[in-house]
Amino acid sequence: MIRIGLDMMGGDFAPLEAVKGVEAFFADKQENVHLLLIGDEAKIKEILPDFNIPANAYSIIHAPQVIEMHEHPTKALKEKQQSSIAIGFHLLASDKMDAFISAGNTGAMMVGALFSIKAIEGVLRPTIGAYMPRENGTLGLLVDVGLNADCKPENLNQFAVLGSLFAKHILKFDDPRVGLVNIGEEEGKGNILAQATFPLLKENKQINFIGNIEGRDILLDKADVLVCEGFTGNVVLKLAESIHDITKRRNIHDEHFDRFDFEKYGGVPVLGVAKPVIIGHGISHATAFKNMIRIAALMKETDLTGKIRESFLVTAS
Amino acid sequence: MIRIGLDMMGGDFAPLEAVKGVEAFFADKQENVHLLLIGDEAKIKEILPDFNIPANAYSIIHAPQVIEMHEHPTKALKEKQQSSIAIGFHLLASDKMDAFISAGNTGAMMVGALFSIKAIEGVLRPTIGAYMPRENGTLGLLVDVGLNADCKPENLNQFAVLGSLFAKHILKFDDPRVGLVNIGEEEGKGNILAQATFPLLKENKQINFIGNIEGRDILLDKADVLVCEGFTGNVVLKLAESIHDITKRRNIHDEHFDRFDFEKYGGVPVLGVAKPVIIGHGISHATAFKNMIRIAALMKETDLTGKIRESFLVTAS
Repeated sequence: MIRIGLDMMGGDFAPLEAVKGVEAFFADKQENVHLLLIGDEAKIKEILPDFNIPANAYSIIHAPQVIEMHEHPTKALKEKQQSSIAIGFHLLASDKMDAFISAGNTGAMMVGALFSIKAIEGVLRPTIGAYMPRENGTLGLLVDVGLNADCKPENLNQFAVLGSLFAKHILKFDDPRVGLVNIGEEEGKGNILAQATFPLLKENKQINFIGNIEGRDILLDKADVLVCEGFTGNVVLKLAESIHDITKRRNIHDEHFDRFDFEKYGGVPVLGVAKPVIIGHGISHATAFKNMIRIAALMKETDLTGKIRESFLVTAS
Repeated sequence: MIRIGLDMMGGDFAPLEAVKGVEAFFADKQENVHLLLIGDEAKIKEILPDFNIPANAYSIIHAPQVIEMHEHPTKALKEKQQSSIAIGFHLLASDKMDAFISAGNTGAMMVGALFSIKAIEGVLRPTIGAYMPRENGTLGLLVDVGLNADCKPENLNQFAVLGSLFAKHILKFDDPRVGLVNIGEEEGKGNILAQATFPLLKENKQINFIGNIEGRDILLDKADVLVCEGFTGNVVLKLAESIHDITKRRNIHDEHFDRFDFEKYGGVPVLGVAKPVIIGHGISHATAFKNMIRIAALMKETDLTGKIRESFLVTAS
């Protein structure tokens, strides 16, 4: 049985959208998952009866406090020990559950992931990625999208490995193609960081490096894992998100541009930390919560964290 | 009389599209402009009679050589002294003309602008920008978009001034709002470069700094001049260009997304060099050439270069 913790108080539409997501998840007959719904017990119990969720598929863990979206992460985590996020990390750290999901305060989730769960041995910096929709319906993975604004070449080399393992085991690419986000196609192009990263990726036997990827190719099916520092990655992600807003405002209905609704993907896990942690978008709706639970279950089933650990042991030896 | 040099051999559709652009430009009764058409005289004369261009509005400058798109810039400029680009820079440097435009080898144009024309005194690094289309029909300016992949805070501070002067005098914004491209809204956010640049922009009395601009706001009417290093700027520009390709492929017809056809804007001048130099996109068509001639004329009329010079003299004193 996979035990997944879900912060019911996180996100702008808590706990309603989280409950809807739980219902949608179990509608697909997920008999090997038990959910720990963490949050205000009274509020959760008040709305649960309206939804069709198998009674033995979940437990409620009461959390009387909530870390609000704009609270200072470190301070809030320390002072609100009875918040859903603090309790979630406590349960995850003490092996009472296998994965933790929240659409709450992003900073508090990052601090919790990095300090109460910690990085896998050998991982210099954990990373967060985002999906990039392609016209053929598949999703690429862009790493990093903001956790690491300044990077060294070795960080990017590790993001490439972390992203490849996620793309292989969770996104089910056979041999994911890794591209270095850059401003020219040929080796030798780019800023100092990209120039120094290229040879590391080229020599890295753990990945299938295909070379530089320019901005115009990020949304095409050229590379499955797109590696860059978190500054460029974050600007690219938010720009791509804004394209969806523009198409909605302009009443453009198109199957591909509908895929730019990043909210529904529900967030990519923090890659490189010792246990599965997924940070959702603040505006997460039911589909996002359903997808996050699904990804968390898949991470546990495929033992992605174990595979990352093995991979970095090989690197270290 | 404004004397503008146009490389007739530059671009994928040379010289036909350049000639079409010249015709379109003069269709608007531009009596104060004299064009120097630089290129293979026989080829130009062969097609000129098919177009309605006032005979006294141009002269042909014969250039027997062409720098091809994939030649090494410095080497080609040195060895092909009789190429249209080399002749163009020679005429510009010796005051035989007031501005030079080419859609040819980008590298050769940059080398020519930086080494035969040189930077204005006080400008540490000239920059190249690109237009960013907004839904209200106006254009913002993103600087730098690739000329300077690695930057110091002082470079970004200067790009802000150069971009503001262009936005004011050429794009006709009264008091252009300058935004720092960043990964968070508040001061203190960002990578080391952005963090160090923020206070410089805040204290800079020559610009109207409005703070950080996130990726999601680049295509909105929030800031008129968007400042970043050339790595992020180039990735953003090429990603935005690819959006137009996607809408075309998917047969989406929309007034706003049609503005993502960057080719038609025809290229932004190299800002900070001593004379007006405009580098066009390789795939430039007639509208692009027409717009480049128009911008070059406007740069001369408004004495943009002189205004940049004054501005940097003030800074230096």
